[in-house]
Amino acid sequence: MQHNDQQAPLSAAQYKEIGAPSMNDILAAAERIKPFAVNTPLLESGVINAMTGARVLFKAEVLQQAGSFKFRGACNRLLQLTAEQKKVGVVAFSSGNHALATSAVARLLDIKATILMPSDAPKTKIEGARRNGATVRLYDRKTEDREAIGREIAGPTGAVIVPPYDDPYIMTGQATVGLEIVEAARVAHIEIDAVLAACSGGGLVAGVASAVRALSPATSVYAVEPAEFNELERSLASGQPEKNPPDARSICDALQVATPGKLTFAVNRRLLAGSLSVTDDEVREAMRVVFAHLKLVVEPGGAVGLAAVLAEKFDIKGKTIVVVLSGGNVDADMFAGTLHP
Amino acid sequence: MQHNDQQAPLSAAQYKEIGAPSMNDILAAAERIKPFAVNTPLLESGVINAMTGARVLFKAEVLQQAGSFKFRGACNRLLQLTAEQKKVGVVAFSSGNHALATSAVARLLDIKATILMPSDAPKTKIEGARRNGATVRLYDRKTEDREAIGREIAGPTGAVIVPPYDDPYIMTGQATVGLEIVEAARVAHIEIDAVLAACSGGGLVAGVASAVRALSPATSVYAVEPAEFNELERSLASGQPEKNPPDARSICDALQVATPGKLTFAVNRRLLAGSLSVTDDEVREAMRVVFAHLKLVVEPGGAVGLAAVLAEKFDIKGKTIVVVLSGGNVDADMFAGTLHP
Repeated sequence: MQHNDQQAPLSAAQYKEIGAPSMNDILAAAERIKPFAVNTPLLESGVINAMTGARVLFKAEVLQQAGSFKFRGACNRLLQLTAEQKKVGVVAFSSGNHALATSAVARLLDIKATILMPSDAPKTKIEGARRNGATVRLYDRKTEDREAIGREIAGPTGAVIVPPYDDPYIMTGQATVGLEIVEAARVAHIEIDAVLAACSGGGLVAGVASAVRALSPATSVYAVEPAEFNELERSLASGQPEKNPPDARSICDALQVATPGKLTFAVNRRLLAGSLSVTDDEVREAMRVVFAHLKLVVEPGGAVGLAAVLAEKFDIKGKTIVVVLSGGNVDADMFAGTLHP
Repeated sequence: MQHNDQQAPLSAAQYKEIGAPSMNDILAAAERIKPFAVNTPLLESGVINAMTGARVLFKAEVLQQAGSFKFRGACNRLLQLTAEQKKVGVVAFSSGNHALATSAVARLLDIKATILMPSDAPKTKIEGARRNGATVRLYDRKTEDREAIGREIAGPTGAVIVPPYDDPYIMTGQATVGLEIVEAARVAHIEIDAVLAACSGGGLVAGVASAVRALSPATSVYAVEPAEFNELERSLASGQPEKNPPDARSICDALQVATPGKLTFAVNRRLLAGSLSVTDDEVREAMRVVFAHLKLVVEPGGAVGLAAVLAEKFDIKGKTIVVVLSGGNVDADMFAGTLHP
């Protein structure tokens, strides 16, 4: 783990300087997406508490619209479009959950969506985006540059590109996860020691950290990554954006980026307590524990937070920890194979 | 389906006459179990709505403590024990979920629990009860009489028997499911046409009907049973408790009783709109739909309500229907086999 010493909360001016969403931005996003998004429950299992020696609360974003937290960012972004932009439509590139989320929001708001997805994305994600009425264009993750294709498609029509994480409105939308965690904990008189959220491009954990560190300065926020895609862990260590090797492999289809987002890294390097990384086997075990004791379906990328807790990647004993179960869009055969190998 | 014509709501005096829990009883139970039970969310899927042509809301009791609605009844019952009774302990007989629930409540209240379970109950249910610290005694469902064994064990010690459904406090505890459904629908300004709940001994559906018919007289409440264990459907038709054949089979391990409960049938014959029955294949399909579109784990007996909707066992088009997903305690191999046969 790369641990960050900068635990003192930042001022509003410092938030602005690093481009982190302010509490005003986050509260406005929460109001904006409220008619569409689910305020997901914070769940707890006595068995998992006994198993870990910690109190573990789960923010169940698998119960979010379109099956992941990505709905929040996409919703906050698409609600910014002008009437003119809505008529032309949007283009999104996504490993899957952002595709589902953008197409779901686009359908709700009656906006045309074209989505670029890697050809090896889970079937449930590709089919789901199509079911939502989006035009899906598949690309090869290894040989094609999705951002370039996105610009090519959007260029002639003037369609707005909705990036998966490196966008202030997306990051602010994801920050509402952190806001809801702190609000629910306050109602239940719970003091949280740490929040763990999955990291790919870094939008979720940057948003969560922005809200949580502002509202609850004593709480640490950790990113969690697959061991072979630990670009943030290495970037925090070196102080600059590091790349993942092109041949890296992980069962976490949702958490495979080349390098940290520009905007998100500027936030994460200042607000996170560190980044933890987990193996595929640790992720599979976490998926089985969520099945058995929370009765939820979590996809590999959504299970990394619990994987880090179960494998004690940091000091968890006696702590109160919130784990974001960030998504549940997993193919039936992959899930069945994980439950009953 | 056996359809009941008695759709006019009953008076408080009639509730008393048939032994149905009054609204005062139900509100008191809700207050009593509040520190322990989860007020489970009412979830919705745009995909399932599109699939069915109805608006379907799901009361997610798989997210309840111990993984099923049974926690409510057991909690309401055990909180009635005197200090003396608490010292001696409780005995429960259960096909599984009541075992998990009673043992979970007993542990919370520091009460000794002995549980009688059929030897062919799912492993997760037997292991769960043991993990909760209960003494589990297995019996043969085909050759032994669980109520007689229960009395034998409880007799010498004076332990209190906690029956799975035929008890006013149990029925009233389960009624809080109905109360929460109506309350959540009111907050969201939703008018409910029908509520569907699984039926085995009948405690859940009797409780739900008691609350829902009192608070929302325009709403119909239906029981749903496995086709081979449709004792309530036949009992409503004949007007007297009918028996299931001893060789009946169903994948719904939680919904296998010999005959309707005495107290519950007195309520159900007056408050239900009818009883629907579903096949094992219809149940498996419902489990897959819940996995894919709600990201929840539901056991066979917990999926019968959605199975009845998907198979259109009554007029669902354009209706707003609440389905109780009553439990999620299913073995990993059974679930994996259902997802990916």
